[in-house]
Formats: sequence, C-alpha cells, structure tokens
Amino acid sequence: MRRAAALAAAAAFILAAAPLASAPPILTGRMRADLATLVASAKATDGAYETVRELLEASGPRLAGSPGGALAVAWATRALEARGFVNVHTEPVMAPHWERGEESGQLLLPIPLKLSLCALGGSVGTAPDGVEADVVEATSLDALDALGEKAKGKIVFIWKVMERGPSGAGYGATVPIRSDGASHAARVGAAAVVIRSVATSNARLPHTGALNYAEGVAKIPAAALAVNDADLLHSYLSKGTRVRMRLTLGARTLPDAATANVVGEIPGREKPGEIVVVGGHLDSWDLGMGAEDDGAGCGIAIEAARLVGALPRRPRRTIRVVLFANEENGLAGGLAYAKAHAAELAQHVGAVEADAGSGRASGFGWIAGPSAEPFLHDLAAFLAPSGLGEMRKGGGGADVGPMRLAGVPLFSAIQDASRYFDVHHSADDTLDKVDPEGLKTNVAAVAALLYALSESETPVERIPEAERRRQRR
Amino acid sequence: MRRAAALAAAAAFILAAAPLASAPPILTGRMRADLATLVASAKATDGAYETVRELLEASGPRLAGSPGGALAVAWATRALEARGFVNVHTEPVMAPHWERGEESGQLLLPIPLKLSLCALGGSVGTAPDGVEADVVEATSLDALDALGEKAKGKIVFIWKVMERGPSGAGYGATVPIRSDGASHAARVGAAAVVIRSVATSNARLPHTGALNYAEGVAKIPAAALAVNDADLLHSYLSKGTRVRMRLTLGARTLPDAATANVVGEIPGREKPGEIVVVGGHLDSWDLGMGAEDDGAGCGIAIEAARLVGALPRRPRRTIRVVLFANEENGLAGGLAYAKAHAAELAQHVGAVEADAGSGRASGFGWIAGPSAEPFLHDLAAFLAPSGLGEMRKGGGGADVGPMRLAGVPLFSAIQDASRYFDVHHSADDTLDKVDPEGLKTNVAAVAALLYALSESETPVERIPEAERRRQRR
Repeated sequence: MRRAAALAAAAAFILAAAPLASAPPILTGRMRADLATLVASAKATDGAYETVRELLEASGPRLAGSPGGALAVAWATRALEARGFVNVHTEPVMAPHWERGEESGQLLLPIPLKLSLCALGGSVGTAPDGVEADVVEATSLDALDALGEKAKGKIVFIWKVMERGPSGAGYGATVPIRSDGASHAARVGAAAVVIRSVATSNARLPHTGALNYAEGVAKIPAAALAVNDADLLHSYLSKGTRVRMRLTLGARTLPDAATANVVGEIPGREKPGEIVVVGGHLDSWDLGMGAEDDGAGCGIAIEAARLVGALPRRPRRTIRVVLFANEENGLAGGLAYAKAHAAELAQHVGAVEADAGSGRASGFGWIAGPSAEPFLHDLAAFLAPSGLGEMRKGGGGADVGPMRLAGVPLFSAIQDASRYFDVHHSADDTLDKVDPEGLKTNVAAVAALLYALSESETPVERIPEAERRRQRR
Repeated sequence: MRRAAALAAAAAFILAAAPLASAPPILTGRMRADLATLVASAKATDGAYETVRELLEASGPRLAGSPGGALAVAWATRALEARGFVNVHTEPVMAPHWERGEESGQLLLPIPLKLSLCALGGSVGTAPDGVEADVVEATSLDALDALGEKAKGKIVFIWKVMERGPSGAGYGATVPIRSDGASHAARVGAAAVVIRSVATSNARLPHTGALNYAEGVAKIPAAALAVNDADLLHSYLSKGTRVRMRLTLGARTLPDAATANVVGEIPGREKPGEIVVVGGHLDSWDLGMGAEDDGAGCGIAIEAARLVGALPRRPRRTIRVVLFANEENGLAGGLAYAKAHAAELAQHVGAVEADAGSGRASGFGWIAGPSAEPFLHDLAAFLAPSGLGEMRKGGGGADVGPMRLAGVPLFSAIQDASRYFDVHHSADDTLDKVDPEGLKTNVAAVAALLYALSESETPVERIPEAERRRQRR
C-alpha cells in the first residue's frame, strides 16, 4: 500500500508540473499519464539492480568464448522468460576468442618490484620467459613516433593521464594510446608497449580494453600498468633514472567462438512489425565482474522494457530487448544483429543503448531526422521536472551503431560518467560500484524513450541519408 | 623570501593567540617562540612527503628478509646522514622471515571465478595443488566455534564488515578474525580459513596482516578475500547456494633473517645522555609500497626531528630517530631496541611513535605520570590555535610499547584514521594515498612533542609502576 501511494503521489506531481514546459504539447494526455506512471515506477523499483546482481552471480566475467560467456547467455534467456518477455531466443554470433592466460610484470631496475599490469585485449603474448628491456617513455603518440631509434628493442612506456569528468570526454582524449600505441611502438622497432591505464581512479588495478593492430605492422605485446605503477616509472624516468623491466604475457587468440545475442520482446498491440530495440551488451572483460560495463546496461534495458510492458495497455509497436554479444573485443554481436535483421531494419523505428554504467541520467541524446525534434523536445520538457529534461544531439552506442547505416534513429540516456572510468575494464568493476539510485534514473529515461518511440502516432523521422555514414563507435 | 615572511607571519599569529588559553602558562617564552617556529615550519615544508617518496622509490615493499628490506635499511642510513643527523648507525635485529610465494584462489561453484585473495602474514602454505573444499560461513569467532562438525574438512569463511571511522576503532573490533580465525577454524577441523579483508575501502584488493597460530593447535592455511569477493560469497551462502573453492598458497617461513633498526641523533646541548626517541617502522607488508604504513610515519619522524634540530639552538636533550625493523610480522625491531638499550631506558625521557598514516593530526595522546598533565595541558593549549590542541590519555605504538615496562612516557599524534584502513596492508598502499597536507599536521604535532620533551626544565614524570604492565600492541 505505501508503495502504491508513493507512486500515485509522484505521478500526480509530474502531471502537475509538466504543463509549465514552454514547448507546445505534442504528447497526448494518455501518453503523459503513462509516462508519469513509468517514471514513478522506475524510481520506485530495485528491479534493474537486482537484475545486475543476478547476472553477475550467474556468470561472473563473460568474455566471448569463456565459460562465463556461455553462462551469461543461458542466464539471459531464463531472465527474459521469467520477466514475461515473449519470443525469447538466441541468435548465433561468431566472435573473436581471446584468452589472457598467465601474465606478470617485474621491475628490475632501479629496484625489484612486482608490477600491477594486464595485457590489453587482443594483445599477442610474449615468449614464455617474457620480454626484458630498458624502458623509454613517451607522453603521447606523436612523442612516441618521434622516439625513432631510441625506441629500438626497448619497451616503450606511454604515460598520459586521463582527466575525470561527467561527460567522459577524457576517455576519448586518452584511449588512442591504448588502441594504437602498440602499432606506433612497433613502427619504431619497440619490443613491447606498456601504457598508463586509461582510467580515473587510483586503485592499484590495471585497466584492459581492446587494441587495434594496424595492417602490415608487426604485432608486439601490449599491456596496461596500474596508474600508481605507471606514475612510479614516470617519476624515475623524469629524473633520468634507468628503468628496466620484464613483461610476460600468456595471451593468445584462438579460433572464433560461438556465442549469441539474446532477444526477447513485448509485442506491439497495433503495429507488431514495427520495432523499437533496446539493448546493452552481455559480454564483459575478463578481469572484473562486468557490473558497470555492462551489467548496468543490461539491467536498465531489461527493466525499462519490462516497465513499459507492465503498463495497463501494451505499447503500439514491438519493444525488442537485445543483449548483445562481444561488444568489448570485436562488436560481433552488433554487426551480426544488423546483418541478420537487414531486411527488417526499415521497420526499426528506433534503437536505444545503455552502455555507460549506472551514473545518474539527466535526459537523453538522439540522432534522427530533423522533424523528430519538436516531439522529442516535448518529451524532454515533460521529463524536466523529474530531472530528466536534458536533450542533446548524439546518441546510441557501439552495438546499435551498425543500424545507423539503415537510418534507424538512435538514442541513449545522458549520464554522469564521472565515476564510470574508475572501474571500467578492470578487476574493480564489481557489484558494489553500481549506484542503485543512478540506475533508477536511467531506467526512467530509457523507459520514457521506449514508450515515446513505440507509442507515437507516426514513427520519428529516420536519420537522413547524408548523416548515416558518420558511424559512431 | 616569500617563505620566510610567511613563516614569520604564522609564528606571530600563534604567539598572539596562545595567551588566550585558559591553563596557567608553564612553557617559557623562549619555548613558546621555538614551538611557534616549529609549527609554522612544519606546515610550510614538503619534507616529510619527499622523504616518503624517496623511501618508496629506493626500496619498494620491504618485509624483513626481502630485497626491499635491505634496500630500505641502506636508504635510511643515507637519508639520516644527508639530513644532518649524527651517530647514524644500524643496530642488528634477527626477524621472522616469511615469504608469500605464488598464490591463487578459484571459485568452483556456483560459477568459475578467479578470486582476489592473499595469504595472511605468517600463514603456512597449502599443498602445491591447493586445498579444495566446500565453504561454510561464520560471521564471528563465536559463530565459528559453534559450527562444530559442520566445519570439518571445509574451508571456513569469516564474513565480518569493518566499520569506517576517524578513530580506527573498527579495526580493533574486526581484526581478531584475522589474527585468531585460523586457530579457531583449526579447532573445529577446518581445512583452511578465508576471511573478508579487514579493510574499509571497496577496491578489489585483499588486505594481509599477521595471524597468530595458537600453541598446540594445527596450523592451517589462512587467506583474506577482497571485500567484493567476500560479499559475493556471502550473497551466495545467504541464499543457501553451495559454494566450493580452491585455495593455493605458496607461503613459507624461512629461518630468521638479519635486518636492522636504523638510528640517528640530534645531540642534546645540555643533557646529551637524556633521550627522546621518535620513530616509525621501516618495514612494510609485501603487497603494497608501504606508503601509509609506515612510510608516512618514517617521514613524519625524520622531518619532525630534523626541524627541531634546525632551530637556532639545539634542544636540551638528545633526540634519537629510530626507524624500527619488522613491526609487521614479529615486532622484532621494537623488542630488540628495548633489549639493547635496557641499561639506558632510565634516561629515556619520552618516546613518540608515528604509525597511523598521513591522516590529519588534531593533537596528541600520552601515557606518563600524573604530574605531567599540567605541562602537557599547557602545550595542548598553546597548540590549539593551530588545530593541534586535542589531548587524550593513551599513546605510543607497537614499536615503543616495550619501553613502557621501563616507565618511558609514550606519545603519539591523534590522527584522523578514516581513510587509513582503505589501503593498509594491501597492494593499494602507494604514494598517491599519502595526504601531503595531513602529513604536515603530523610533523607539526610530533615536532612540538619532541621539542617539549627535550626542552622541559625537568623530564615529564614516568609511567607509574602500576601502569607499566598494560602493554599496548
């Protein structure tokens, strides 16, 4: 009873506050009432958090090809069925299969020290007894290129500090050292590359993530140091102290592994053939539990869709939850979905992705045709009193990105990413890092988007031809 | 010039503010002026922080018997000489020599998962292929004792959460699961014991620390799980889910190793035979860099003594810095000092210990005879305007504790320990965790104590006979 009363009070507040918004109303009275119910329900339930817990406890780390990967697919199928989704099924995906194996790093000079490091995702391994060499530092890829002969036979160390911030922009500014550092270092003849983890916390844990070996360049071993260990090396090297280390990586790439996207639906009441996709990715890096990346997104997607399905009237169009495979090291799931559903993408009226953790949502980002803007603006104005009224061009995510080529409008919540990169891709990505309250705000934002996209009289305008090629990863 | 002006201004403020204190003044005008200079100097210098950095970069982890342990002794000798101490020398100590070796933990049921764990200090190792068993939980030592037959052949898991707080009282309330858990578990026939780390942070790193095997009880392997992994096991077990794991510890105890206390002095100008000791411990656990525990204490002790020595007039009595060996796993350094200097302890007029990290100081704790109180109260009143006026019965520390039996008055700063147990005894104890500003407040408090003890007309009254046996560890 207390919960029902709270829901009603919250809904009444939202209904009362909404007419103050300045844009002319496009949302119908029924839609406003349903949206108010959704937002209130989202903020009153721990459903997403409990879903994250279930996933983590059922699978653990779940990189494609790992035992946890298979456990996660099995869990997702059960979980969607248990929550009342229909047409629950898996869609096969062949994905890169990379294994970390045993790995270690030892500082040899100026002092003996066990280093905290990990191979970057996709790295080749070293010989069994490792690579031992002096270390030369660069603070950017340009500086690395300029090392020239000085890097020959050395371990190149890239020291660049990622800045913390709500937009996560520091990640984009820093991640090239991870993705491209190995090939830059190989071009100047380095034996291996180690980077300062692309991360914002100072927990002494390294952060992995995919690298890209450039075509035609030697593949050299690549690892990330915990920021503390990186800063120690930087301190020595800044004083001209000789630094020597050994890096031993047991990493290897095996033949592609069979995994799957997991799908479940809430069928549309009027236009079941028109589809709104909502997804997160089911896979995770091997070091952590994949709580923030992307257990949180799976929890948000499932719970938001479930809440829309729990409204008194089913939505006009079909809502399809897709839990994508292999976002982390290949994007095979997102690519496979777009390929398998190519004939159906013209009937995809929108796709919403959740892949930025549990940080508080403040609104949504969007990519669609220009005529969508007044409708979305009305939605944002309605959501403003709930703290979800921000609206920004640019949305979607890696997994739904391939649908952009077909013009499918793309959406995502705007989130506070200040803490996300504290744990992202590290052993520290565990359940305790998930913010239950932040999760609720994301469920509210995503549920509102799903409802609006599935219920609008006409679908929002598709991404114009000219904008479809600017694909976002 | 700017620095000298700032020092003078700060000193003037302290001098002006001090007469407001309510206790009748005992400190002479000269002492008040010198104390004001000391406090201002302490707050204006990064000396302690740079000393911590030097130590860490010169030695790394430095458990007794390890390569880092020897590097630390060599560094300490150089560092004391470089800072102008005299009679710098080492005093031999034979200490327990424990090595961690390789270790790992695997969750086998309900999911496969690499666990984040470490052996407790002093633990025996397992057989090379480890201990594999089902896990039974207890939330206290009493509950463990009550497991009886249910624990037989099992891995006993003790789940108890340490509370965070400025006094660090949560540590005392929780640490018995670490020190005594193994013997309690052995008494009910357990194959091994694992505990939730005695720690306040949620970084996914385990915290080690010494255990005590009880006489006449089987020694079983003992490890600490990162709090996240412990909470995962607790979640499974709370639902009745079967949990099975394998624990492999390569730990072993070798013959005692030769190490040393490192000593340096500022000779007294009038009574060089009367001594004020100030110390921290030079050793550290093997997992981290020993920054907070106890690089910070070494930095505080050295810098506080250096500042007293840098006053225009040398102190009346001798100030002796002692960097103790083997505090962590045996206390051999503190015991050896008291033994080697037994004949001289009657001339020890006080001992100050710094071993609680870099958290902000707010005053000092003391154990001495009752007639010391007015003098110390006057000192506290003088320090109050500098934020260092708290005064509390109880002080000292593990290393100076053995001197209590001889009645040597014991002191330490009162510190905010809220963050100390986030990193204590873990890989996360790195330079970036040291608070440079907090360190300065400790230097100020310790320097003031050293000065007051070395300069007072008569020594403070010794600990009364009746109180000497209540030794504090």
